[in-house]
Amino acid sequence: MKEFRVGIDGGGTKTKCLFLESSRTEMPEQPLSITGAGSNPHIVGFEEAARRIKGLVLEGCTRYNISPEQIASIGIGLAGLGRAKDIKRMEEALDALFFSLNLSENTEYYIGSDSEIALEGALAPEVRSGMLVIAGTGSNAVARDEVSGFYRCGGWGHLLGDEGGAYYLSLKALSSVVKAHDGRGPRTMLSELVLQALNLEHEQDLIQYMYEKPREKQEVAQLASLVIKACEKGDEVATRLIEEAADELVLHVASLAKQSPYFNERTPITVAGSMFTFSPTLKRAFQNRLLDRKLGVFQEPHAPPEFGAVMLGKKAENVREGGGVHD
Amino acid sequence: MKEFRVGIDGGGTKTKCLFLESSRTEMPEQPLSITGAGSNPHIVGFEEAARRIKGLVLEGCTRYNISPEQIASIGIGLAGLGRAKDIKRMEEALDALFFSLNLSENTEYYIGSDSEIALEGALAPEVRSGMLVIAGTGSNAVARDEVSGFYRCGGWGHLLGDEGGAYYLSLKALSSVVKAHDGRGPRTMLSELVLQALNLEHEQDLIQYMYEKPREKQEVAQLASLVIKACEKGDEVATRLIEEAADELVLHVASLAKQSPYFNERTPITVAGSMFTFSPTLKRAFQNRLLDRKLGVFQEPHAPPEFGAVMLGKKAENVREGGGVHD
Repeated sequence: MKEFRVGIDGGGTKTKCLFLESSRTEMPEQPLSITGAGSNPHIVGFEEAARRIKGLVLEGCTRYNISPEQIASIGIGLAGLGRAKDIKRMEEALDALFFSLNLSENTEYYIGSDSEIALEGALAPEVRSGMLVIAGTGSNAVARDEVSGFYRCGGWGHLLGDEGGAYYLSLKALSSVVKAHDGRGPRTMLSELVLQALNLEHEQDLIQYMYEKPREKQEVAQLASLVIKACEKGDEVATRLIEEAADELVLHVASLAKQSPYFNERTPITVAGSMFTFSPTLKRAFQNRLLDRKLGVFQEPHAPPEFGAVMLGKKAENVREGGGVHD
Repeated sequence: MKEFRVGIDGGGTKTKCLFLESSRTEMPEQPLSITGAGSNPHIVGFEEAARRIKGLVLEGCTRYNISPEQIASIGIGLAGLGRAKDIKRMEEALDALFFSLNLSENTEYYIGSDSEIALEGALAPEVRSGMLVIAGTGSNAVARDEVSGFYRCGGWGHLLGDEGGAYYLSLKALSSVVKAHDGRGPRTMLSELVLQALNLEHEQDLIQYMYEKPREKQEVAQLASLVIKACEKGDEVATRLIEEAADELVLHVASLAKQSPYFNERTPITVAGSMFTFSPTLKRAFQNRLLDRKLGVFQEPHAPPEFGAVMLGKKAENVREGGGVHD
């Protein structure tokens, strides 16, 4: 009977669940995977997050004709799951539900943050020291070194941090638009792009748009795509905003670099998130700054976060078998 | 029988009501005034704002032994009252209530924004052209010129603007604290001051403080006092934040200066709001930049906003008597 490992990447808007045969050590070209609704426990609640994860595992088992008993481990990384207290609460919620899944009694779990699994997936298994800089709606950076140290930087959320992320950039773009309107800042293509995208006639209408009812961070963050567009068309204000975002993201690397003697100019630095995916200018500016400052070597991610979740689940199996978590 | 004019300055947290004998043209040393709860119609509702204003007028009449029939005019400036639609709605709410006050049928009203009355009070009556820069929780600037033009700049609220205001500065301070903690920014006195003021043990606790429940803008804005304190003690991060605030506020003046040919290097520029009141460094930096850029001449405000409200009510009387509003 084949054995499988499950990896779950639970984000704010969607959850990915990957089934990987235990004999495999690389991400397959045609992965057995399934996607469902978001499972950030701080958005949907801990119990609901657990229900959604269980539902996805069950659905995947049915679709791929896998019996729960064949599952050796489940690795889970969830957005919003940073603090030890939250991890414990999530474990309890999952324990109660997974019991009814008829998993093997030997099935092991790993539960951690979305950043941990993303780092694990982004760095190839043989790479011991490396970093991952994430710029999606928010921003943060994580790293690991030879001695199994795990390091974080940023990730303070939209009021305290998230520099270089899409929400942060969107607010900067809106500020540039009203400054241009006031004559307090240079004219920018963003004015027309923003009004058009939001279907507004005048800059003054932004006040009603932003304050009449609370806007989801996600909704506001979509305006970052306009900054990327204006930047690619050569708009100076947008280009400066993107370059400032690159500066802020490189600051995360510089800060991590100081935290371990294993980090040096050969350390692999990889990236994730919509900002890097959709803005070639941001990615290029980020890479150039890494080179200039000798902070590390840019690399494309090895595999997606759900693969990292599988790998962290596998490490939990090793613990059971007497190995160290960080083998 | 003496005649009185009433001036009302309705802010977010308090409302001031001034009774001025019609024979007077200056703010008295011992004004007949009374203070009540806030009357920003977007916070307390239009009907409640009208009720509070009526209540204050009645209370003042009783305290100072004035009959409502003696009131020649009521000038009202309210926070949150910018758009024509809102002013009309406020007029309707006040009409319904003032009818029951037994005012003289000749009593005139003026209803406008808190910025308009603040400008009217801040500039001496004989001064035709001038500006007022306001930096309280938020920020904005207003001006008038020889030909009765009224100009605005800024005032876009905490998500779109408010550069140089206390809320804006507080978020910058919090960002500096987490950046220092991450090693992404220089160490600053603000770290200890902020944690102490919020009674938190660690920078990480800021996350719970800021996100666990929505914080009032006012509450967060109070942290600006710590920036002022650290700046006066020579902290470099805090000093740079205050200087950036001065830059942003001067940008408002530079923008207004372009809007009328009557504005020049002799134009009186006056200021209001807690940021200018409590930060000598901000005020000095602002004044120096005005001088350097030849944008105008700094002046202390002539009289408070409630006096400006009285004066705008008086202008409404003149309209009735056949004069122009802007006599």
